Amino acid sequence: MKKLRCGLIGATGLAGQQFVSALKDHPWFELTGLAASPRNAGKSYAEALKAPNGMMGWFLAEELPAHIAKMTVQAGAELKAQDFDLVFSAVESDVAKELEPKLARDIPVISAASAFRYEEDVPLLIPPVNADHSRLIETQKKRRDWKGFIVPIPNCTTTGLAVTLAPLESAFGVQAVMMTSLQAVSGAGRSPGVIGLDIIDNVIPHIAKEEGKVEIETKKILGGIQTPHGVKVSCTCTRVAVLEGHTEAAYVGLKKKASVQEVSAAMREWKGHEAARGLPTSPKHWVSVSDDPFRPQPRLDRDAEGGMTTSVGRIREDGVLENGVKYVLVSHNTKMGAAKGAVLVAELLKQQGFVV
Amino acid sequence: MKKLRCGLIGATGLAGQQFVSALKDHPWFELTGLAASPRNAGKSYAEALKAPNGMMGWFLAEELPAHIAKMTVQAGAELKAQDFDLVFSAVESDVAKELEPKLARDIPVISAASAFRYEEDVPLLIPPVNADHSRLIETQKKRRDWKGFIVPIPNCTTTGLAVTLAPLESAFGVQAVMMTSLQAVSGAGRSPGVIGLDIIDNVIPHIAKEEGKVEIETKKILGGIQTPHGVKVSCTCTRVAVLEGHTEAAYVGLKKKASVQEVSAAMREWKGHEAARGLPTSPKHWVSVSDDPFRPQPRLDRDAEGGMTTSVGRIREDGVLENGVKYVLVSHNTKMGAAKGAVLVAELLKQQGFVV
Amino acid sequence: MKKLRCGLIGATGLAGQQFVSALKDHPWFELTGLAASPRNAGKSYAEALKAPNGMMGWFLAEELPAHIAKMTVQAGAELKAQDFDLVFSAVESDVAKELEPKLARDIPVISAASAFRYEEDVPLLIPPVNADHSRLIETQKKRRDWKGFIVPIPNCTTTGLAVTLAPLESAFGVQAVMMTSLQAVSGAGRSPGVIGLDIIDNVIPHIAKEEGKVEIETKKILGGIQTPHGVKVSCTCTRVAVLEGHTEAAYVGLKKKASVQEVSAAMREWKGHEAARGLPTSPKHWVSVSDDPFRPQPRLDRDAEGGMTTSVGRIREDGVLENGVKYVLVSHNTKMGAAKGAVLVAELLKQQGFVV
Amino acid sequence: MKKLRCGLIGATGLAGQQFVSALKDHPWFELTGLAASPRNAGKSYAEALKAPNGMMGWFLAEELPAHIAKMTVQAGAELKAQDFDLVFSAVESDVAKELEPKLARDIPVISAASAFRYEEDVPLLIPPVNADHSRLIETQKKRRDWKGFIVPIPNCTTTGLAVTLAPLESAFGVQAVMMTSLQAVSGAGRSPGVIGLDIIDNVIPHIAKEEGKVEIETKKILGGIQTPHGVKVSCTCTRVAVLEGHTEAAYVGLKKKASVQEVSAAMREWKGHEAARGLPTSPKHWVSVSDDPFRPQPRLDRDAEGGMTTSVGRIREDGVLENGVKYVLVSHNTKMGAAKGAVLVAELLKQQGFVV
Repeated sequence: MKKLRCGLIGATGLAGQQFVSALKDHPWFELTGLAASPRNAGKSYAEALKAPNGMMGWFLAEELPAHIAKMTVQAGAELKAQDFDLVFSAVESDVAKELEPKLARDIPVISAASAFRYEEDVPLLIPPVNADHSRLIETQKKRRDWKGFIVPIPNCTTTGLAVTLAPLESAFGVQAVMMTSLQAVSGAGRSPGVIGLDIIDNVIPHIAKEEGKVEIETKKILGGIQTPHGVKVSCTCTRVAVLEGHTEAAYVGLKKKASVQEVSAAMREWKGHEAARGLPTSPKHWVSVSDDPFRPQPRLDRDAEGGMTTSVGRIREDGVLENGVKYVLVSHNTKMGAAKGAVLVAELLKQQGFVV
Repeated sequence: MKKLRCGLIGATGLAGQQFVSALKDHPWFELTGLAASPRNAGKSYAEALKAPNGMMGWFLAEELPAHIAKMTVQAGAELKAQDFDLVFSAVESDVAKELEPKLARDIPVISAASAFRYEEDVPLLIPPVNADHSRLIETQKKRRDWKGFIVPIPNCTTTGLAVTLAPLESAFGVQAVMMTSLQAVSGAGRSPGVIGLDIIDNVIPHIAKEEGKVEIETKKILGGIQTPHGVKVSCTCTRVAVLEGHTEAAYVGLKKKASVQEVSAAMREWKGHEAARGLPTSPKHWVSVSDDPFRPQPRLDRDAEGGMTTSVGRIREDGVLENGVKYVLVSHNTKMGAAKGAVLVAELLKQQGFVV
Repeated sequence: MKKLRCGLIGATGLAGQQFVSALKDHPWFELTGLAASPRNAGKSYAEALKAPNGMMGWFLAEELPAHIAKMTVQAGAELKAQDFDLVFSAVESDVAKELEPKLARDIPVISAASAFRYEEDVPLLIPPVNADHSRLIETQKKRRDWKGFIVPIPNCTTTGLAVTLAPLESAFGVQAVMMTSLQAVSGAGRSPGVIGLDIIDNVIPHIAKEEGKVEIETKKILGGIQTPHGVKVSCTCTRVAVLEGHTEAAYVGLKKKASVQEVSAAMREWKGHEAARGLPTSPKHWVSVSDDPFRPQPRLDRDAEGGMTTSVGRIREDGVLENGVKYVLVSHNTKMGAAKGAVLVAELLKQQGFVV
Repeated sequence: MKKLRCGLIGATGLAGQQFVSALKDHPWFELTGLAASPRNAGKSYAEALKAPNGMMGWFLAEELPAHIAKMTVQAGAELKAQDFDLVFSAVESDVAKELEPKLARDIPVISAASAFRYEEDVPLLIPPVNADHSRLIETQKKRRDWKGFIVPIPNCTTTGLAVTLAPLESAFGVQAVMMTSLQAVSGAGRSPGVIGLDIIDNVIPHIAKEEGKVEIETKKILGGIQTPHGVKVSCTCTRVAVLEGHTEAAYVGLKKKASVQEVSAAMREWKGHEAARGLPTSPKHWVSVSDDPFRPQPRLDRDAEGGMTTSVGRIREDGVLENGVKYVLVSHNTKMGAAKGAVLVAELLKQQGFVV
């Protein structure tokens, strides 16, 4: 099988590097074009990453693949749609607003940016949760008169929550969710990111706009194709001294009373949407449940099944919400919650025939 | 005025050292006896602290007062009640169970241990919140036929929560509380405490027994003298890589609807119980409220007014609980929540005539 | 006594905030003018600190003094020399290069920037070490035809090293120094500073230009007024996950053999230059020596005597260098090594009549 | 090929768990017996790991292999030599002193403990550095009249240093070494290990006995089979807030002058002892050299080639030592420096015919 030719915009940032990693040795996709800001155009990717002080600028522990290092970086605006079968987007939201629709006129754009997440004709996809929302792509293409389309992934904090709510919604119904997050610093990227002076021996009790995103996105993802779910959601999002992996303490009011055992079983047995099973990036278990009261921990659990499994533990009754249960989850914010999650969406869309 | 003679049991542990610090230069109290485990009996306090490997074993950044360093340590069981006007207890719960009642036969014991917190005739005191609960001491003395008594302070995680709930209870009534804590490692002490391998780049999602303590203690403190409050409480207690200062994300269902401004005003203007004002260890403000969305932070706010002020921020509406509001608080777990909080209780009891 | 009127350029940055703190309640000096970048000109200091996202931007745990909060910020270039008796400079080196000489034409400038440190007619002052170097000010004024002058303080990493070398130089002579530093993140400031993603669970083995600075500055400080000391210096400067306080492992080859006891005594008994004793910011001990093998530690020792004492421990023989001894030191990089160190220099210069 | 039957003593501790991981899927060795303290005898390994509070007690991020989880744990003293072809030892030094000689009477013991490292007839093996030292095993067996033998690996801090000194010794000769280490907390294990309260926002400037170990071991490893090398070694060993990977700043005086390029080339091109190449656990490069001035970093480089490569950077001239060069290295203290390093030794000894 010939691999699909993929472009990547925002290639030099931390999110972009994670896409490079997620696409390395992919059986269906091949990175054939890298784009970044105009000042890096014409340089090799390795050169573009290099800081003036000599720092390599490749921030992952794994090695930068040699053939990618040598690829020539283009300016985002110069990217030609005809050279690609699809484009992944790792740019900031303001750049996404301009660049993504330009590309989507001709080809599919799978984006980690928030720019289009809240548009009515744009599905917000987590393959195991709402693979059928992809049908909205038809509407989007028609309405915008595009040959391509834009499909964003949700905020990384929404992802872990939604993945664990899906089996509960399907088994018992969900009517209310309260969630306090303890988020990793990688979520803030590197420019400027969270500085050490702020996070060592500290907690930052606020992440700009994050809580609103989680509240809206959760309803959109759990809802019908164009009808947000009626669940009430209330969050507090904080930042802690963790590198990768968002921890979330969730309290869920179910529609139908369920015991801790039933909740645990619902999560353990959840297979996710059929269309999402067996994709190259799909884990065997979308959710894993631990009986160890000291799990999940971000450092020990974030990389479960390649960072694609959401780890749940501490399932208990909650005495405040109606039919309340509570639990703690860990989700890898830069794998399932970002680049690899976006690649998973691309795989789903290829499987469903939206990407060809 | 002659200072009251105070004994301290559990003097060598971290909690004990914090009592030494809290009582240093106290206008009313003077440490005149130190007790620890039998193997340290007969040594000077400085010697008793010293580890075999040469480490000093005094873990506070401030200097160990020279006259305390020279005091001779006794075995806890050898302490003679007649030498003291009151005793502070910093021992573990199992030791407290034996030692505290023995001393309480003759003199007041103010304890940081949980051993007697849940007994019906034992008040759980936070002076600004429930100073009147001290009346229960009479019942306790009569019932147990003691000349002294035991008054424990609450768990450090309860303290911050209860201090912020008190103004809400008094202004609007409180019917439900959900709280996720991000607790400092100092709360676990040093033997063994939380090890670096577990907490660096990590969150530990469970603290044994902590959630149950907060749920029961909150009801006891906010309730009548012998009638627990009817509020529903549900918690998730986690540990983060913070040295001192517990951060708590609270969601509160009020009895009466109140705006964010009203909630903020209720906290800002709260004076606390009259009997608790103006004590040597009382801060000017029991609660301070910040408008900076990035506050409170444990590192910046834990030491507010000597670690005795609870810092609140991010007051917002909550859309899930009835008349819901949410906020974040920071409380100094080893000052207001431990040794200094216990000293504050002793001050209150002296003021009220229970300690003479 | 009327206090001297002090201006502060670079007032809004982290270094500037530390000057605000160091000058609060100073008996001789009073902050009467604050300058920052033009975009903040005309705002109150509190407003100038405020970030667009609502963050207060005052990063110290102590409160911003109310009267300073209200002061109006000027653009650095607009500052009028006649309004001040001296100016403290907390700007970056490139801004210093322009702004400091402009001011120095008329008034003394005490600077934390490196811009003029290596000029022949500029003394690099650590008051207890080389208070007599201030005589070079005369040469500077004459040669540049200035009414004022520029006196920079050394790099914060040099300071701790030089303070501990001075007693050794004076007692035994120093011929070679090797030093590996474990530096705090505060040394890098906040824009961009060291990001959490780089320093959590990590060491950064390089700090741009730092090693060269330490090597040159150490020779200049320990040397004669215009003759660098002949000591050989070799360093490795690294960054660790510490907020404040540089730790340095030093290995020193003495000119004259000395035992560990003699080295320890030389440091303990060192009084520093007479002119530096008893200044408002002088500590009682420039160097303190611990016998605890686990000290000094940055968190426990950085704040010794207001952050002005250099803490030394682990003095041992070194078997490689001729007459070698080795030890570990902790120096507060943003107190003795920055703002408070600069204020100490100003105090010395006032005492010596250079600042009036 | 039938795999050799391996026993593991000290199986439940952190070091033991790392042996379990290192031996998982090993092509030559198979774990067929696990031993721990008598109180765990008779339990399954999973049960033996379990803490009373419900914590699983398996501390690696990878999963505990299911067939190992089910193996029955024996008391160390009950282990029967005839059941094994060799035994790996992960016990503490005092237990090693008793248990290892008992086993060595009959079978080879490869040990991570320090108990026998300094005995004259015991080789201290780092396969690429001194594979030929294994000949000392003959002497040991004869002298002690054992059928088996004991071969310990060096201290983890020595390993990284010795691996980088070996190419320098071979190319230029080494006459003096000064080294300051910034060591990871994993080196201290878990009981009690380094507590979070001591290491967050801190450096601990002392690790008991570590410096002496590095000094003696380096001479033994670089020396002849029974003649320590004459190199002078002086160290300062510190602990920093890093999970895994020791960072060391080394200063080396060579016998023959060499440029930075020559030193770099010597390290890059070093193949190590022939007998150590191509073993199952051998990396392709024993040493890798980076030109990025910000490398090596423990978090980014510790896992290079499965944690078996020592990463070097910042090679510079040193102006103090004769023919001095300096560099920074990162070595994985619990892989190359512990369990995997011991497995590598076992592989070498099998290759050489000492283990059959």
